[in-house]
Parts: sequence; C-alpha cells; structure tokens
Amino acid sequence: MKRQIGQQTLLFENRPYVIGSAGIVSKSESEGPLAESFDRIEPDDTFGQDSFEKAERTLYLETIRLACQKSGLQPKKLSALLGGDLLNQLITSNYAARELGVPYLGLYGACSTMSESLLLGSVLVDAGFRSPVACVACSHFSTAERQYRYPLEMGTTAPPTAQRTVTGAGCVLLADRADSDSRYSHIRISSATIGAVIDLGINDIANMGAAMAPAACDTIQKHLKDMNRKSSDYDRIVTGDLGTLGSELLCKLCSQNGISLSNVHMDCGASIYSPEQGYNCGGSGCGCSAVVLTGHLLPQLESGALKRILFLATGALMSPTSCQQGESIPGIAHAVVLEHAEGGEA
Amino acid sequence: MKRQIGQQTLLFENRPYVIGSAGIVSKSESEGPLAESFDRIEPDDTFGQDSFEKAERTLYLETIRLACQKSGLQPKKLSALLGGDLLNQLITSNYAARELGVPYLGLYGACSTMSESLLLGSVLVDAGFRSPVACVACSHFSTAERQYRYPLEMGTTAPPTAQRTVTGAGCVLLADRADSDSRYSHIRISSATIGAVIDLGINDIANMGAAMAPAACDTIQKHLKDMNRKSSDYDRIVTGDLGTLGSELLCKLCSQNGISLSNVHMDCGASIYSPEQGYNCGGSGCGCSAVVLTGHLLPQLESGALKRILFLATGALMSPTSCQQGESIPGIAHAVVLEHAEGGEA
Repeated sequence: MKRQIGQQTLLFENRPYVIGSAGIVSKSESEGPLAESFDRIEPDDTFGQDSFEKAERTLYLETIRLACQKSGLQPKKLSALLGGDLLNQLITSNYAARELGVPYLGLYGACSTMSESLLLGSVLVDAGFRSPVACVACSHFSTAERQYRYPLEMGTTAPPTAQRTVTGAGCVLLADRADSDSRYSHIRISSATIGAVIDLGINDIANMGAAMAPAACDTIQKHLKDMNRKSSDYDRIVTGDLGTLGSELLCKLCSQNGISLSNVHMDCGASIYSPEQGYNCGGSGCGCSAVVLTGHLLPQLESGALKRILFLATGALMSPTSCQQGESIPGIAHAVVLEHAEGGEA
Repeated sequence: MKRQIGQQTLLFENRPYVIGSAGIVSKSESEGPLAESFDRIEPDDTFGQDSFEKAERTLYLETIRLACQKSGLQPKKLSALLGGDLLNQLITSNYAARELGVPYLGLYGACSTMSESLLLGSVLVDAGFRSPVACVACSHFSTAERQYRYPLEMGTTAPPTAQRTVTGAGCVLLADRADSDSRYSHIRISSATIGAVIDLGINDIANMGAAMAPAACDTIQKHLKDMNRKSSDYDRIVTGDLGTLGSELLCKLCSQNGISLSNVHMDCGASIYSPEQGYNCGGSGCGCSAVVLTGHLLPQLESGALKRILFLATGALMSPTSCQQGESIPGIAHAVVLEHAEGGEA
C-alpha cells in the first residue's frame, strides 16, 4: 500500500490505535460548557509549585501519568514521548521528559502541537518503529501571557479579538494494538496531512484566530483533495483554537474555495468557554485542542457517536521579537483523521 | 524486518539515501581548520538584512536552496521540510518555511536538532511516507548570544568553559533513491537512536559541554547495546558541540561505562575553530554539527574514506527563565548511523 498520497497527506496502512488519553485543566476551564468531560480539574493553577513555569511542568507530567494509569501502562514503558508546549526552549516538555527518562522528541508547532505530535506518533507506530507512544501538548494561561504579551501584574485589558490561553494538558497514547487494559479500543488513526506555513499578513498579536484561519483552510483543502473526499465525509472537522472570529473567517475562506463547513465545523477554542465567562473570542493555547480532543471528542469516537473526524490543531507562529521587527504572523495547521472502528477488525 | 530494536533504536530497512546537502557559514568559521569544506562562506554575517534574526532566516533559506540546486531539485518539490533553530518560537525555521510553502514540521532539540531532523526525516522516507525531504538546522552567533546570554553591546568576556555559537546552517536531503542528478549516491542511513533527557545537575550557562556530555554518553551506550556493536564498529563517533571540555568529559564517562572512544571520537564543536581563534572550548549551536556534517563528513562518506559513522548532535536544553528559577540544564542527544554504500546495492 502506498503511504504517500497527494501533495501533503500520509496514509496509515496499519491504522494505529488510540489506546488511552487524559486531559487535566484548571479553574476557568471547569466553569465552561465542557467541564464534565475533563479527566481532572485542578482549581489551584499553581499546581502546588512556586512558579507558573513549574506549575505547567507539573500539569504536563501528571497528565502523562494519568493517561498511562488509565490504560494500565507504566510511564517508563513508553517507547517514545512526542510533545511540545508554548514556552521558550520547550521547558515544560523538556523538564517533564527528564522526569520520565524515556526516548523523547521535542516538537514546536505553537498551538498546532497536538496534531503535529499525533501525526508523527502515528508515523512511528504505523511503520513499526515504536509502540506505545505518548503524544502531548500543554499550555498555561499565566506562563503564556507573560511570555507572549504583558506581565499579568499590569492588568492589561484584552481587546475584543483576544482569546484566553487554556490552562490544560492533553496526552494521547497510540499503539499498534489495543488490549484489555486499554481505556479505548475502537479509535484508529487512518491518515494525516502535514500543513504548510501560510501567512496572509495579520500582525495583531491579539488576533490569533485571523492569523490561523488561512492555514486551517489550506490544510482542509489539501486534505480533501489528496483523499478525494468532501467535508460531509466527516462527522466533524475540528479546528484547534481559531475562536469565534477565526472560525467565521475559516468558514468564509472555505466557502470561497467551494468547501462547505456548515453542520460539520467545530472549533475547540470557541467551545471551551461560555460567552458569559467574558473571554472574548474563546480559548487558545496548545492545551486547548488537546483537552477538547481528550475530554470531549475521544469518548464519542470510542462509543461510535462520532464515526470519523478531521482534527486540526492550528498554530499561530507568533513571536514577540518578530512582531517588534514588523513581521506578520504566519499560521500552520496539521490534520489527523480519527475514526471509530468496530472491535476485532484490526 | 523489525523496525524497533532494543530500548531506543530504530532500524531503517530501506536505508534512505542522502542525495544532497549544503552548508553555509560566516567569517569566524572561514578562519578555522575546516574552512575549505563549506559550500559557501558569507563574510557579512548580516546576510544583507537589517536585523540578525532576518540574517539567520536568509542563511537558513539559502542553505536549503543551495542543497536543492546542487541535487537538481526544485525546492517546491520537497515533500517535507523538517527543521529547527535556536530562536524562541523557531522564527528562523518558521519564516523560512513560509517562503518555501512546502509541508513543514517544526522541531526543537536545541543543538541536537540536526540529528532529530535526520532521524525523523529517515523515518518518513524509510516507511514510504515522504520523499525527498529536507532536514535542516541553523544557528547564528549574534541572535543566540543576545537571546541566551547577554546583549553583544555589553562586550561581556567569555569564561574559559564557554563556546562560540556557530553562524551556519546545514541542510541534508534524504530520498528513497538517488538519481543521476543527485550530489551523492553512496550514503545511506541505516539506523537511529532516540535520546532521552539526561541531567546531572550542571547549572552554568557558560558550560554547555558539561551539561550535554552525560546525554551523549547515554545515547552512545544505548545505541551500542541495542545494535549489539562496539565503538570500534564505527570509523567515527561524532558528537555535536561538546567542545574540548565536554569531549574530555564524554570520553571519561564512556570509559567508566566500558566504552573506549579513543581513535574514534570526533566533536564538531572542538573541530570547527582553531585554538588560535580564542573561542575557548570551541563551537556550539545547532548549526555547528550541521555544517561539519555537510561540509566535512558527507564527502568522506560518499568517497568511502569513511565507511560508517555514528552522528550525534547534542543539545543543552537550556533556558534563561529556568536558569533564573534555579534549575539545572538537561541535555539530549539523538544518534543516526550514516554508511558508505557501493552503488547499485539499493
């Protein structure tokens, strides 16, 4: 079987199994409409640590351990850890990987990290290089805000286009087979599309949705073309954190390209908070799509309530240094296809 | 054939071809002992740009274009670009990827990026997911110094343990076959070992070699064990940028673990400058191992002067924020095996 299809898409002939997952969030996320879906809610966003960076690392590490525990797997049995976060030098992932001591590949795709890690994790499992592997993404409101925008102590007011960085981490375990201890045994990954970097010239660091929407549209287009499918072949096309404004833009852009997303599009950033929480356009951060995938989507794929979804975490490749030097903000979106599969058809 | 061997090693049954490469450096590197080996020397380290960040991006992009040109490949024909750099949010790689418009996977492994990209590039090619792919790493003295240590304008004196960040970029092209236009047709990648994050407690940001040596030792040990080989099965075991002090530490650590590196070890950081240049322990930065690989090592593998090498780019997962919060500096090293192969044995 051919594993390379079309311009940007990879076919997974052995369709790696999603055998487990976990998602942990904090207070703001527990007040939104998806509160019930998360595996654990930790109201104290310091996670008992003396800096927010250490808090984020604890969140990351505990999410991996929880995912392993729920699938009867010892973390040290992971044959690879693929992950990233939003902090400079990936300190969250790197220091968490130090604690686990397993083979580790650091990835940076801004908020697209959850699908980048699922894509590369699926590659490793599908071709028999590694199994089981953990794919992880994490973000924290208080570390991201001060690194990318302003110190929290300034009390800056967010403009209407802004989104709130989700404090949360999601971990998905992939393997070449599911066994009786596995949390899930009916979810398989069948293909993925690597995104290209797309930039239509947005330079407002408080309008990430607009910077990412063109990249999401590009990857959706390429994916559907490569696979010779229509948007209606999916129960959901799920974007990471375009937020309400970015989602509107995406639907318009897709529509201009002859792709209808009505009835099929869902955005994790636009879904995780309720408008009453006052977070403007919704959630963002690479933890956003990670916890919505692990909490809200995977259980529906396992049960068969969802048969096939296209999951695209979306990244704004934003940098304070580049923005200060007058650069616009490029976006990227990688896509993976997750399917419900009946047991025994391995 | 089994693709997963031992604890951390991947076997490439189709042994991807190195079909081309390029390395570009600047003035300091042109004054060192390997000057003759580089594909291009650009004495002006601004590369005609108005900021060093833009200079680094230009360096990165031109290196990819040069590698493609030397192998008769149009850059837009790349089926994937895997790369990284040292700057926050990978701005060098991301903005370069924006210009090329090809499927892109951003990697962060600090100075281990060249072997991380070769490892994942080989995975994609070996299993038939993508071909050809470009694997890239890049660093620039003037962007790294101000991001990681002090503004250059301060004129800080480097301590004796310090190394100089190499201004250079290396790009290696991998494919499932070599053809008549290819720059190389006798170099294959046969296996790789994913590193784990190792930390023995070094917390001096001017002593990266000591922080990385334990990780290099760990990966060499795991690799030799997984492959059931001895160090003498390699013509060279090449580390990335341990520098002179880190190289001594590595040899000691390996010796304590029953592995002799005498006659076989070479460090790119300790080789790229001459002692007379006054750069203390040598070169560093992810461009260092990238340009020594592309300039000095690949031609010898192509000719058969070298039959088999273990190439380990080494990364110090150092972060100014973590160091300020009292953390030590973890290291990581990924390894790939490059072999000379006679033509026609594909």
